[in-house]
Amino acid sequence: MRLRNVKNKEQILASSPYLITNPKDYCGTWSSVFCNHHPIYLEIGMGKGKFLIEQALRHPENNYIGIERYDSVLARAVEKVPEGLFNLRIVRANAIDVDTFFDHEISLLYLNFSDPWPKKRHALRRLTSPVFLAKYDSIFSDVPRIIQKTDNRSLFEYSLMSLVEYGYYFEDISLDLHHSDYQDNVMTEFEERFVGLGQVIYYLSAVKKNVNIS
Amino acid sequence: MRLRNVKNKEQILASSPYLITNPKDYCGTWSSVFCNHHPIYLEIGMGKGKFLIEQALRHPENNYIGIERYDSVLARAVEKVPEGLFNLRIVRANAIDVDTFFDHEISLLYLNFSDPWPKKRHALRRLTSPVFLAKYDSIFSDVPRIIQKTDNRSLFEYSLMSLVEYGYYFEDISLDLHHSDYQDNVMTEFEERFVGLGQVIYYLSAVKKNVNIS
Repeated sequence: MRLRNVKNKEQILASSPYLITNPKDYCGTWSSVFCNHHPIYLEIGMGKGKFLIEQALRHPENNYIGIERYDSVLARAVEKVPEGLFNLRIVRANAIDVDTFFDHEISLLYLNFSDPWPKKRHALRRLTSPVFLAKYDSIFSDVPRIIQKTDNRSLFEYSLMSLVEYGYYFEDISLDLHHSDYQDNVMTEFEERFVGLGQVIYYLSAVKKNVNIS
Repeated sequence: MRLRNVKNKEQILASSPYLITNPKDYCGTWSSVFCNHHPIYLEIGMGKGKFLIEQALRHPENNYIGIERYDSVLARAVEKVPEGLFNLRIVRANAIDVDTFFDHEISLLYLNFSDPWPKKRHALRRLTSPVFLAKYDSIFSDVPRIIQKTDNRSLFEYSLMSLVEYGYYFEDISLDLHHSDYQDNVMTEFEERFVGLGQVIYYLSAVKKNVNIS
């Protein structure tokens, strides 16, 4: 995510009814934030929010939470949220703490165009590394379920291997999402740009089983 | 594999010291065929044999067996084998019977540019379908290990999902083999043609663990 400074970002963020800056306080009680028991879908690294806002508009029967750490990006996202989109919340936080925000409350995790951390010595910072997969275990209300999209080949190769090693299997894989017979794809800002450039978008949907590996 | 008829194919095949047409007779005794106990590498669908012959030349410390069903293709392969390549055998057979040819004797299985069987109703004919994966279980001397290369996106997506579902995990994946830092790749006839056309080649190396899925 390229960061352009946003003037008045502090004011924009302070005045938003959608922004949550103390997510740990809601751990275990997110249903009360949304005043319902609808499934909660989480996006880590929501960026400017196009994907999550569009999902929230399309699916009033679900709740959506996006995590993002950069204020300039958050301000852009907050500005975009249409009035009265009560099934969406935006959390300002670092993903590394995600297991302290949710206690068996998330139905599905989206990882869209995450930072690829290309250097091997940074591999554990990737959002599909075993470090993060272990954190996700306790956020899911039922079986862990992750959907990832990326244009980054190395990150996707890594994710395929890492997820399987951790006990996930695949419900669906596309090695060229925009030339697949895939329905209802909601594009992120990144995705629109990359697809415009003719780049391949990789997609996976993974579910974790209870697995004993010997 | 496009089949061009080869004249005199019967004579070519009949006169080859490398061709085996009764593989069931050797089940459990392949070491005696090679007169040594070196590891045996198997390729199902060896085509015209470039890959396997080159492997056999590079690695005299291993034995290589290729399976192919079409006489015209076999004749081309047989003609190519250099004299005295004693660590190679070519088997005329249908892959569906592979579990009757080998009894815990194979170290590694190569599936190069296999028929993609693109129609869903033919999915079980793909060489990475659960039907074939079950047959492979009993051919391996140690843990099952499969290396697949293909230019076919749908076949590769299917393989990734099917292998994991069957208990394999990945040692290595490349979604663009010829733009990876991969060493010692031996190209097949197909691969040379596809790479020349700028097509992406997919690669995976998968190993089966003893897994209990609940």
